[in-house]
Amino acid sequence: MGTPRATVIVTGTEVLGGWVSDRNGPWLARRLGALGVEHVSTVTVGDRPADLRAALEHARDQGYALIVTSGGLGPTEDDLTAATVAEFTGRPAALDAALEARIWAILEPLSKRWKHISQEAVRSANRKQAMVPAGATVLEPVGTAPGLIVPPTDDDPSRPPTPTVVVMPGPPSELQPMWAVAEQEDAFRAALTGATDLRESTWRLFGLPESEIANTMRSARDVGIPIDDLEITTCVHRGELEVVTRWTPAADAVASAFEEFVADHHADTLFSTDGRRIDEIVLDLLRERDWTIATAESCTGGMVASRLTDRAGASDVVAGGVVSYSNAVKQRVLGVDAEDLRDHGAVSAVVAQAMAQGALDRLGAQVAVATTGIAGPGGGTDAKPVGTVYVAVETADGQSLVRHVQLPGNRAAVRDRTVTAALHMVRRVLLGERDAG
Amino acid sequence: MGTPRATVIVTGTEVLGGWVSDRNGPWLARRLGALGVEHVSTVTVGDRPADLRAALEHARDQGYALIVTSGGLGPTEDDLTAATVAEFTGRPAALDAALEARIWAILEPLSKRWKHISQEAVRSANRKQAMVPAGATVLEPVGTAPGLIVPPTDDDPSRPPTPTVVVMPGPPSELQPMWAVAEQEDAFRAALTGATDLRESTWRLFGLPESEIANTMRSARDVGIPIDDLEITTCVHRGELEVVTRWTPAADAVASAFEEFVADHHADTLFSTDGRRIDEIVLDLLRERDWTIATAESCTGGMVASRLTDRAGASDVVAGGVVSYSNAVKQRVLGVDAEDLRDHGAVSAVVAQAMAQGALDRLGAQVAVATTGIAGPGGGTDAKPVGTVYVAVETADGQSLVRHVQLPGNRAAVRDRTVTAALHMVRRVLLGERDAG
Repeated sequence: MGTPRATVIVTGTEVLGGWVSDRNGPWLARRLGALGVEHVSTVTVGDRPADLRAALEHARDQGYALIVTSGGLGPTEDDLTAATVAEFTGRPAALDAALEARIWAILEPLSKRWKHISQEAVRSANRKQAMVPAGATVLEPVGTAPGLIVPPTDDDPSRPPTPTVVVMPGPPSELQPMWAVAEQEDAFRAALTGATDLRESTWRLFGLPESEIANTMRSARDVGIPIDDLEITTCVHRGELEVVTRWTPAADAVASAFEEFVADHHADTLFSTDGRRIDEIVLDLLRERDWTIATAESCTGGMVASRLTDRAGASDVVAGGVVSYSNAVKQRVLGVDAEDLRDHGAVSAVVAQAMAQGALDRLGAQVAVATTGIAGPGGGTDAKPVGTVYVAVETADGQSLVRHVQLPGNRAAVRDRTVTAALHMVRRVLLGERDAG
Repeated sequence: MGTPRATVIVTGTEVLGGWVSDRNGPWLARRLGALGVEHVSTVTVGDRPADLRAALEHARDQGYALIVTSGGLGPTEDDLTAATVAEFTGRPAALDAALEARIWAILEPLSKRWKHISQEAVRSANRKQAMVPAGATVLEPVGTAPGLIVPPTDDDPSRPPTPTVVVMPGPPSELQPMWAVAEQEDAFRAALTGATDLRESTWRLFGLPESEIANTMRSARDVGIPIDDLEITTCVHRGELEVVTRWTPAADAVASAFEEFVADHHADTLFSTDGRRIDEIVLDLLRERDWTIATAESCTGGMVASRLTDRAGASDVVAGGVVSYSNAVKQRVLGVDAEDLRDHGAVSAVVAQAMAQGALDRLGAQVAVATTGIAGPGGGTDAKPVGTVYVAVETADGQSLVRHVQLPGNRAAVRDRTVTAALHMVRRVLLGERDAG
C-alpha cells in the first residue's frame, strides 16, 4: 500500500482574490508532512459551491486518501462548505440538536452585542452550523463553528470512493487547535493507513547562498553519502537559508551522515539545528545571561523591537527601544553627537555605534543593537547607494561589534534583511565575538 | 459567449510545503480580475511534473480559457514547467538559437562569480531555458528565464482544447514586469475573447462588524437597489472591513447608488473610498499639516512605528518613537510618573496619556500616539484580562484623545489590532476629534 496522498482546499473569495493571505495551506502542509502523508497540492477556490465541488471531485478522481478543507463554516449565506461536502459524499445532513444547543451556549452571550441582528437570524445561522452529514464525526467548535471528519463513501462502482474529508474553519486560531483534536480521532487515523513514519529536521544557516548548499549536496553524494535516500528542501527565508530534511527510519544513518557533513562544511554559517529561529535564539541567550536588550533603530523603524517582542515572555529580556528616524531624535533621545552626524552622516559606523551606546545608557540595558541605513527608494548617493546599512552592537561590559552590509532588493527587502542581520550580530556578541581593540 | 475562466498554477515544493509564501497567486488574481477574466482557482503543486500535469489536465477538462503558471523556469534539474507544458499541449519544443544567445549574454557575466559551477553546466542550463514549444510566443527574460505564451491545441476530438497557457517565472520581481508585456501580446488577447470590461472600487470601514455590512446589503436590496448586478466581496483585514465592488459599465448607476447608500449608513466608520489604507491616510494628513509624529509603544513593541515607516517618504513626517516595554524605560525615557504606574498600573488611560505626552516632549513632534495593553498569553487579571488595551493621542497644540479597547484573539491578533486602532485614533485627532475637557 502506497503513501496516502492529500490535498488541501482553501475556500474564500477574499483569499482567492488576494485580499487576505492564506496561512492555513502552509500550516497544514507541515502537519501533513509530519504525519507521513504526501501533500500533493493546495487549491484555493472562492465561495462558489460549484468550484469547491469541482476541486473535491478532482481529488476523488486522482485517488487521494484525504481532503482537508478550510473556511466556509460561518453563519452567512455564502458559507456553504459543510453542505457541499455532504452532497459530494452522498451523506445527507441532519440537525444535531445537542450540537445546536452547545453552539447556542457560545452564541447567546455574543448575540446580545449585535443590536441590529434579530435573535431569529442568529438562531437560524446556529441551526445551519449544527447540520451534520450522516456518519461524520463532529469536532467541537473552537470559535463558533464545529468541524467535521466525513468518512469515505464507496457507493458508485463507476468511480473511486470519496476521500476522507476533514472540514475545518478558516481562522487559523480556530483551525490549529481543532486540527490537534482531529489528529486523534479514529475517523482521521483511518485515512492514514500506509502513511510513512517520517522524521524531519530543520537546519538554518545565515550568510550562505542557496547555490552553495546545492554544491554541498553534490559533494556529499561524491564522498558516498546516499543523499537521494533523503528528501531535502532548501529555501531562503528572510535572508536565512533553511534546509529541511525528511527521511524514513531506515535512512537514519544517512540523515546523520549528511547532517554531520553540513555541520563540518558550514560551521561558520550554521546557527540552528533544533528548529529555533534567530529571534528565539537571541531571547534564549539573553535569558541564560539574565540580560536585557535595548534597540536603537533608524532604517528598520521599530521592526527589530517588534520582532523581539513577537514572542510571549519577551518582557523579561526586552527593556525597550528608540526609533530614531530623524537626526533630531538621534541627538535628543540617544545623545548622538551633532558633529558625528555632520562628519560621518547618519548612515555610518560611528553613528550606529553612538546610537547603540545611547540606547544602552538611556534605557539601562546590558546589550543594545542599532541599525542605520538607506532603505530606499530615495536617499541613495554614489558613495552610499540604497541598501547601505550599518549595524552596531554594544554591551554594558564593553563588547562592541559594528558591520557595514550592502543589501539587495527594494525598501521592504532591505528593512527585513537588516532586521535579520541585526539579530545575528546580537547572537554573535552574546556568544563572545567582538571587534579587536 | 461567456466570461473566460482562468486558473493560476503555482509550482514549487518550497511554496507547497509552506517554507515560502506565494505572492504570485494573489497578484495574478487581481490582474485577472481587472482584465474581466473569471479567476476560478489557484492551485499550488510541488516540483513534480506529474502533479503539474494533473493540474493542467483538470483545467483543460473544466473548459478554462486560460492557465497561468508561475515558477519552475530556472536552470536546475527540478525546473520542468516549460517541458511539461510543451508535452501537455502536444507542441514539441525546439531550441531557439537566437534566444539561447540572448540568455547567454545575461548569464555570462554572472557565471564568472559562480566558482563552483562549470561553464559547461551553465551552458547546458542556458540551452534548456531556450527550448520553445512549437507556435509559442517568447516573453523576453527579466531575470534569466524567458516566459512563454502557448496557444490552444485542439487536436483530439475526445477532449476539450488545451487552454492558452501563460508560463511565467517564479520571482515576483520577474513575473510582474513580464506579465505587463504578456498582456499586450496577441496570443494573450486571443484568450480574453468574451472578457467583461469590469470596474472596481475598494471601500474601507473601521469598527463595523462584517455581519453589519451584510445587513446593509439586504437593506439596499429592500429599498430597490438591484445590488445583484454588482459583485460585492467583503472581508476583514487587520481589523478593518474591506468592501470590494466590481461591476460592468451597464451597472454604473447601480454601483453609484449602492456606494451612496453605504456612505449614508456608515458615515461614522467609512474612512477610505479611494483604496488608501489607514497608514497612507495618516501619513497624507500629517503631510498636509506639515506635522511630525512620534510613537510611544508598550504592547505593540515597535509595530506602530514600523508600520508608519513601511512606506517610502515616511522620514518627512515620522520623527521616531520609543518602545517602552519595561516600566523603567517608561519612567527614564518617557518621564512617566512612578506614582501613576503604581496607582493606575502600566496598562491604564493615565499611563497611556503620560507616554504620549512624554513622546511628544522628548521627541519634539506635533502629535504622539501611545499604546499600552496586555497582549498575552500571560499577564491578564480579572480586572484587566488579556486583550485590555489603552491608546492615547496627544498633540503639541493641546488636543487629547484616549480610549480603552478590549480586543479578542491571541497575542499576534491583539498586537495587530492595537496598531490599527492606534492609527485610526491618530486619523480622528488629525481630523479634529478630541475628548471633552
